[in-house]
Amino acid sequence: MGECFKIALDAMGGDYAPQEVVRGALLALGENPQLELLLVGDEARIKDELVACHSKSLERITLIHAPAMMSMSEAITALRKKRDASIMRAMDQVKEGRARAVVAAGSTGAAMSAALLRWGRIKGVERPAIATVLPTAAGPCLLLDVGATVDCKAEWLRQFAFMGAAYARMVLRIPVPRVGLLNIGEEPEKGNEQALAAHHLLAAAPGPFWTFIGNIEGRAIWDGSADVVVTDGFAGNIALKTAEGVSALVTRLLKSAIRQGSLRAKLGAVLLRPAFRVLQRRIDPAEYGGALLLGVDGVCVICHGSSKAYAVANAIRVACQALAGEYLEFVRSSSTFGESVKGAT
Amino acid sequence: MGECFKIALDAMGGDYAPQEVVRGALLALGENPQLELLLVGDEARIKDELVACHSKSLERITLIHAPAMMSMSEAITALRKKRDASIMRAMDQVKEGRARAVVAAGSTGAAMSAALLRWGRIKGVERPAIATVLPTAAGPCLLLDVGATVDCKAEWLRQFAFMGAAYARMVLRIPVPRVGLLNIGEEPEKGNEQALAAHHLLAAAPGPFWTFIGNIEGRAIWDGSADVVVTDGFAGNIALKTAEGVSALVTRLLKSAIRQGSLRAKLGAVLLRPAFRVLQRRIDPAEYGGALLLGVDGVCVICHGSSKAYAVANAIRVACQALAGEYLEFVRSSSTFGESVKGAT
Repeated sequence: MGECFKIALDAMGGDYAPQEVVRGALLALGENPQLELLLVGDEARIKDELVACHSKSLERITLIHAPAMMSMSEAITALRKKRDASIMRAMDQVKEGRARAVVAAGSTGAAMSAALLRWGRIKGVERPAIATVLPTAAGPCLLLDVGATVDCKAEWLRQFAFMGAAYARMVLRIPVPRVGLLNIGEEPEKGNEQALAAHHLLAAAPGPFWTFIGNIEGRAIWDGSADVVVTDGFAGNIALKTAEGVSALVTRLLKSAIRQGSLRAKLGAVLLRPAFRVLQRRIDPAEYGGALLLGVDGVCVICHGSSKAYAVANAIRVACQALAGEYLEFVRSSSTFGESVKGAT
Repeated sequence: MGECFKIALDAMGGDYAPQEVVRGALLALGENPQLELLLVGDEARIKDELVACHSKSLERITLIHAPAMMSMSEAITALRKKRDASIMRAMDQVKEGRARAVVAAGSTGAAMSAALLRWGRIKGVERPAIATVLPTAAGPCLLLDVGATVDCKAEWLRQFAFMGAAYARMVLRIPVPRVGLLNIGEEPEKGNEQALAAHHLLAAAPGPFWTFIGNIEGRAIWDGSADVVVTDGFAGNIALKTAEGVSALVTRLLKSAIRQGSLRAKLGAVLLRPAFRVLQRRIDPAEYGGALLLGVDGVCVICHGSSKAYAVANAIRVACQALAGEYLEFVRSSSTFGESVKGAT
């Protein structure tokens, strides 16, 4: 009994492929007995890794040979001609019904292009968006777009609101998500041209299963004031990377304050170590690892190129959650304008 | 001997005016014997505060009566008709030679409009920018614009680079500042239309006293990779507010981890308290308090509307540094294009 999660994993993507990707796969298989993985990439190299790891989960692994791979620096246009690239073959597994989702650890641009080429866009959505779950003082907050579509029309931001709200409802289990627009002030008249136009659109036509709570400042994201925060891929990426940079800086400064501090401070740090670990787990990107590529007609989760095994396993978990929540089915059956949404009310 | 710093302070600006502004003024006077302040606002109310504080620095304070004030919600257009508003009167003090700089703690928009109305723009600069000094792992970094000009042409970003570099050189004492462009990737071909165009402009014509080091991601700001980071007022504001939100969240989570932790964690926290204080001082916005309004033809420092005495005193210190560094004189005598820059080489 129970749902089966068949996921295609691009084993050649990212800075530490295939080693860390394979290790992440085995971690995920160990955690979830309903998981089956298709490891896509250089068959011989993946096999070597599997042998080195002495895995017990081999019967839930299928190898799909894909001789070529996309390097981080390769132009996206090269992808069209590279049908045997591991990321393209991974998308094929879903298209041809052998898997239900793709997890990619390599170049974000390559994953996005491959998904668009192989799966196309979902009806009613003109541009893809990458969504990431952020920790806040009061639960998770979904931020999108964090880098897929950098020049955005207001209408596309409204479509992002729809997709983000659908994800928050189906996967994060928030019945009526509160959607905010990332902006430089709370007042409706604040912002650049794009934000003003988007505010107008969002306020005029909220969805049947979400509420528009207006503008959200960069600071308020972290209070948990909104469940979904919508912005273009430029501002969203700046916000996400800034947040990562500040948490890294705080950790670094705290360590240096302790190192340069008195014996008293050093003793204090030793005593506080378990509390620090709890904190780190709450703000660590690897813990929240796995950004969702929304707007393409399939479930695809992208990890940082620098992902280690733990982050890959997390991304696989995120993909399973998206499948279990039937996010894609809900979005396919819904209208972005909110009329006659099946199962939404 | 010694330079005299005569600064006009809008005593009616901000959420805690005039009380906290007056207290901040007295703090600053206590720190700097070369400082003289013109307190602009409701004379009777300022006098009451001064009496309540039993100040010894009264001989270095001049009161300038300005009966009207701008509320945070008031439209900027109202300012034109409100010539007796305290922020307008403060600008007048500089225009008429009675003060050398203005410190404003109220609405950023009102301060900017008043400066533009009274002082005008500096030659060669088409739009104002607000610059703020951020802490990084390796010294200060000047980020601009953080909210003055939200829709930016690439050429304006180049002018921001010039102003930021001039400030970093003259005030932060960095002889050849490294200027970066805030973007979503390091590669020159990354970014939205505006960032691509600005990268092209900045790479083509760097200044004689600064180097363009290319794109800087939101994460790299905090490594100290650049001395100056340039962006439009929308993305810059998102970055700044996100940073504030994340540091507030980390502090909050750390406190809650300690509170919910064992006796061991609580003891550790007590021992670590001095180290925490050092850390907080390094990342506290009040410590770095005082954003510079660049591009107007005068020195103006803006504090958060929620500034307390300590932040007001810091803003006054920032204004003194700008005056001592002769930032304005340098910018006035320089060309934004870098040809024949007096004293730059």
